[in-house]
Amino acid sequence: MVEESLLCGSWYAERIAPDYAHVFVVKEHIYTGRTSLQRVDVIRHEIFGKILLLDGKPQLSTFDEWIYHELLVHPPMLAHPSPRKVAILGGGDGGALREVLKHPTVEEVFLIDIDREVIEICKKYLPEVNAGAFDDRRVRIVVKDARKFIQETSEKFDVIIADLTDPISGISESLYTKDFYLQLQRNLEDNGIFCTQAESIYFSHLYFRVSFPTIVKTIRSVFERSSPYKAWIPSFGCEWAYCIASNSIEVDTSWKFAKKKLEEIKLDTRYYDADVQKSAFCLPKNIRKLIESVGRVIEDRDLRNV
Amino acid sequence: MVEESLLCGSWYAERIAPDYAHVFVVKEHIYTGRTSLQRVDVIRHEIFGKILLLDGKPQLSTFDEWIYHELLVHPPMLAHPSPRKVAILGGGDGGALREVLKHPTVEEVFLIDIDREVIEICKKYLPEVNAGAFDDRRVRIVVKDARKFIQETSEKFDVIIADLTDPISGISESLYTKDFYLQLQRNLEDNGIFCTQAESIYFSHLYFRVSFPTIVKTIRSVFERSSPYKAWIPSFGCEWAYCIASNSIEVDTSWKFAKKKLEEIKLDTRYYDADVQKSAFCLPKNIRKLIESVGRVIEDRDLRNV
Amino acid sequence: MVEESLLCGSWYAERIAPDYAHVFVVKEHIYTGRTSLQRVDVIRHEIFGKILLLDGKPQLSTFDEWIYHELLVHPPMLAHPSPRKVAILGGGDGGALREVLKHPTVEEVFLIDIDREVIEICKKYLPEVNAGAFDDRRVRIVVKDARKFIQETSEKFDVIIADLTDPISGISESLYTKDFYLQLQRNLEDNGIFCTQAESIYFSHLYFRVSFPTIVKTIRSVFERSSPYKAWIPSFGCEWAYCIASNSIEVDTSWKFAKKKLEEIKLDTRYYDADVQKSAFCLPKNIRKLIESVGRVIEDRDLRNV
Amino acid sequence: MVEESLLCGSWYAERIAPDYAHVFVVKEHIYTGRTSLQRVDVIRHEIFGKILLLDGKPQLSTFDEWIYHELLVHPPMLAHPSPRKVAILGGGDGGALREVLKHPTVEEVFLIDIDREVIEICKKYLPEVNAGAFDDRRVRIVVKDARKFIQETSEKFDVIIADLTDPISGISESLYTKDFYLQLQRNLEDNGIFCTQAESIYFSHLYFRVSFPTIVKTIRSVFERSSPYKAWIPSFGCEWAYCIASNSIEVDTSWKFAKKKLEEIKLDTRYYDADVQKSAFCLPKNIRKLIESVGRVIEDRDLRNV
Repeated sequence: MVEESLLCGSWYAERIAPDYAHVFVVKEHIYTGRTSLQRVDVIRHEIFGKILLLDGKPQLSTFDEWIYHELLVHPPMLAHPSPRKVAILGGGDGGALREVLKHPTVEEVFLIDIDREVIEICKKYLPEVNAGAFDDRRVRIVVKDARKFIQETSEKFDVIIADLTDPISGISESLYTKDFYLQLQRNLEDNGIFCTQAESIYFSHLYFRVSFPTIVKTIRSVFERSSPYKAWIPSFGCEWAYCIASNSIEVDTSWKFAKKKLEEIKLDTRYYDADVQKSAFCLPKNIRKLIESVGRVIEDRDLRNV
Repeated sequence: MVEESLLCGSWYAERIAPDYAHVFVVKEHIYTGRTSLQRVDVIRHEIFGKILLLDGKPQLSTFDEWIYHELLVHPPMLAHPSPRKVAILGGGDGGALREVLKHPTVEEVFLIDIDREVIEICKKYLPEVNAGAFDDRRVRIVVKDARKFIQETSEKFDVIIADLTDPISGISESLYTKDFYLQLQRNLEDNGIFCTQAESIYFSHLYFRVSFPTIVKTIRSVFERSSPYKAWIPSFGCEWAYCIASNSIEVDTSWKFAKKKLEEIKLDTRYYDADVQKSAFCLPKNIRKLIESVGRVIEDRDLRNV
Repeated sequence: MVEESLLCGSWYAERIAPDYAHVFVVKEHIYTGRTSLQRVDVIRHEIFGKILLLDGKPQLSTFDEWIYHELLVHPPMLAHPSPRKVAILGGGDGGALREVLKHPTVEEVFLIDIDREVIEICKKYLPEVNAGAFDDRRVRIVVKDARKFIQETSEKFDVIIADLTDPISGISESLYTKDFYLQLQRNLEDNGIFCTQAESIYFSHLYFRVSFPTIVKTIRSVFERSSPYKAWIPSFGCEWAYCIASNSIEVDTSWKFAKKKLEEIKLDTRYYDADVQKSAFCLPKNIRKLIESVGRVIEDRDLRNV
Repeated sequence: MVEESLLCGSWYAERIAPDYAHVFVVKEHIYTGRTSLQRVDVIRHEIFGKILLLDGKPQLSTFDEWIYHELLVHPPMLAHPSPRKVAILGGGDGGALREVLKHPTVEEVFLIDIDREVIEICKKYLPEVNAGAFDDRRVRIVVKDARKFIQETSEKFDVIIADLTDPISGISESLYTKDFYLQLQRNLEDNGIFCTQAESIYFSHLYFRVSFPTIVKTIRSVFERSSPYKAWIPSFGCEWAYCIASNSIEVDTSWKFAKKKLEEIKLDTRYYDADVQKSAFCLPKNIRKLIESVGRVIEDRDLRNV
């Protein structure tokens, strides 16, 4: 009996908003361990399949990571006329990498993740997520803090994708500031496109300093053109945001453009298509108002006053 | 401190899927009582404001009931050229009624709810939801089982809106069967439109006999034209479906048509506009596939074999 | 199915120790309301029957309130040669009163509770607890803060019983200080006995400033003779302490004395007898050590430095 | 902040009674794995230290395993005039073994546990529990089902201690039947003593077929003399029972006898002493009544009719 386990078993709870949480009954603890940087758990859930947790926080589930990753990757990749060189900041699970590699023009992908051991654990326990992506000869793994990489590298990219953890400490927050976006801009080619995950639309501003509205506003203060977009990711328990940005007028995030491109390159996806593109970029009235009324541009110096 | 209350306080948990639930910390029990038909609770939550519960199950929150109600009501109302006579099945809280009354062509609205006491409790404890709608001279309250009303009435409607509780017992399930839809069809005018809430998109088929895919398929077996659509309702913890249906070729659910109508009638909404209409009707690939691969047409006789 | 309700229903959680709680599934919300001083709820539970909550904290259950009340009342009442005049501080539910009235020598009982409405709610919703005790002609209800009553009254008592809520705020803490006990001492007759509930033995010192060890030490600093004792109260989720105190050498808390008295007066109890008295006063080694090693005498002035 | 973890973290819940559970916030997952027979987890908790779980059910915590083990072992060991040969059924964690070895007359201890891997995991992750006991030259480890061992062995023991898991399946239940006790009796020397853990006093009969009252009655149907006794084990969330039994009139479980023995052998304990012995054997009125009114003798054949 399924429910028995709630009274006699193991659960994971994640706070989604103040006084509001969602709860997963654990079917099996598959792996528990510590890297030099963080705690890593892989659990099994009745519906969500395997769930990866870093420091006790769910990062992805095999039930729906493809929704999250397809929508993080394909809008920026399709908006670019011919992406050859791509960087993924974070993304040690390999899911975003898998999606990037589906684009036939791609010649080189840098994956910059701070924790090599997480990559190894994901290779071993979540092979359905990375799907051999780490073995692709186009891939270069860089084990480094993404902020540091961006500060130091002279590489330039057609597309940079930020697949980062939640901005809940000074360290992770620093990957969502104006200063960081200004640095990162220098690593984009002329037609270059940046895309980042952008937190929970309805809830993040209720308890995070860096939140959906601040990310959108901060990106807007740096890039000439930007668009937030969204999707509901079942295992996240809430509607999730992304934000795409560029300085080029040739970048086109319209669903019609995406549709045309999709007719050429025939992406093998489970969730994404031109209809999803159309739906994702339509934010409702109250959310457009929320972006304007809440939060402000975040700079490095704001993070120091803790 | 907000979290204190989780270790020493009152919670409401709602199962969203097998082994998966969301949990609300209760800030205040505002009302608890029993009508002759069900238990009714009104609680207060930090984020979601007031939450109405029937037999322990959350029905709406003041944080987002307008998302749910605007999307339930405006697509069918705008798809009809000139809705004058409308029926709401269920909807004792008055939220759908409030939205229907915003349409200037409306001359008469029947609200058919089985529990008069729920209406009274909502008038008293949730005035922000019904917003005086019950006092509008165009409104006729019918205290009756919706199935029985449809079987017995000779009234005909331009729009019928089903704002029903979850199909978890034989009684509530009977409002989602082919037999019921066939009866209801006779109560629609020639250009008449039917719209119903249609349960959780990703999860309902995992534990309900009547679920999102079966509702879509059953409606499709009766009406000549139908379209499922969706929105994320924060307090529901998952993406929610609706299904609109008609036998008339003059019915137009395109966002362009909605946009044109909206330019004429200037609806006062918080969530809904033409962009929402556009987004709501784009179902992703995996969901279109889900509808085809899962569930089947449900008839009254299926409910007897329990 | 019982467990269904855990995934879709109402719970009460009470913190027992840091990071440790117990959880009650609510079968029915019987009453919810606010007096001028606090929130009052009465719920029904599968095993524990009715549970009374003040400000969201469980106070008693009909499953075992008689364990708590019999052990709070009978040891001090039997230790006194002939208790005629008794005061109960708190105890608005009437359970301690019911037990006191069982002693045939009793002529007058003062019940001093700050909240008259709680008494009325308990009379109406928990008649099995007070069992008509409030109607006994020997009873005098005083609606007043117990601290204030003790400061102002010139009445003297044979037995004073403190049936108080947890010391979690300055107000309730002030009923567990040396200053209070010194005042209270003046209201005891020469052979007078004081007895108080004394919190969770293993856990209270882990998160309360006023805790089992501090109560025992503070009482000991005031009274010439005192003894902590204990019992497991199922619905409390932990072993609970009491402390009895007196300045008279004629007071005898031995189980042999209790036994002799019980042979004379034939108390009608469900839990208590001489064996319980024997067991209750034997504290294990680790607890005797805990009292010595943790906490200190608490005075009014300690409560000001918050 | 401690409570943060409840909304964003890992919990273990254990059902204590129908609709009633206690919940541990997990500070760290120390070990997770599977033996050939069961799942084993070791977690760390703020208060309870390390907790061992078998198949998701808490077995012991380092906070209080010594309460459980001292009370399981010392009453039977002290009641015997001179225990030389002892058997422990179950007890793979080594805690009962550690206590048995404290008795100076002991020459040989058999520990019969079905799962060798559990012993190895406990040696590695819970060294504070077994405290080197497995390395004592007097110890013999037998990896075998305890029922089978008792059926097959011709060894005779002065004391047999049953340190078993809960009777929740046919296999574990078979270690609490009349048939088993009759077999086991043949393995006791003339003055031999048997002692078993005997489940939760107030709750076990509410949901287990084999429960505290049935264990007491079944033992009583086999042995000439027996006594249930109890203690509150904090991490168990309820008062726990044991039952000691013998056919010899020379066996003395009085606290006076224990006290006299303790003066001779000076046991190094943290919880147990003569006062604990006195307290443990005094069952309150309602529990003595419960034993008589609930449950019945359980035989092997009762377990077959599932």
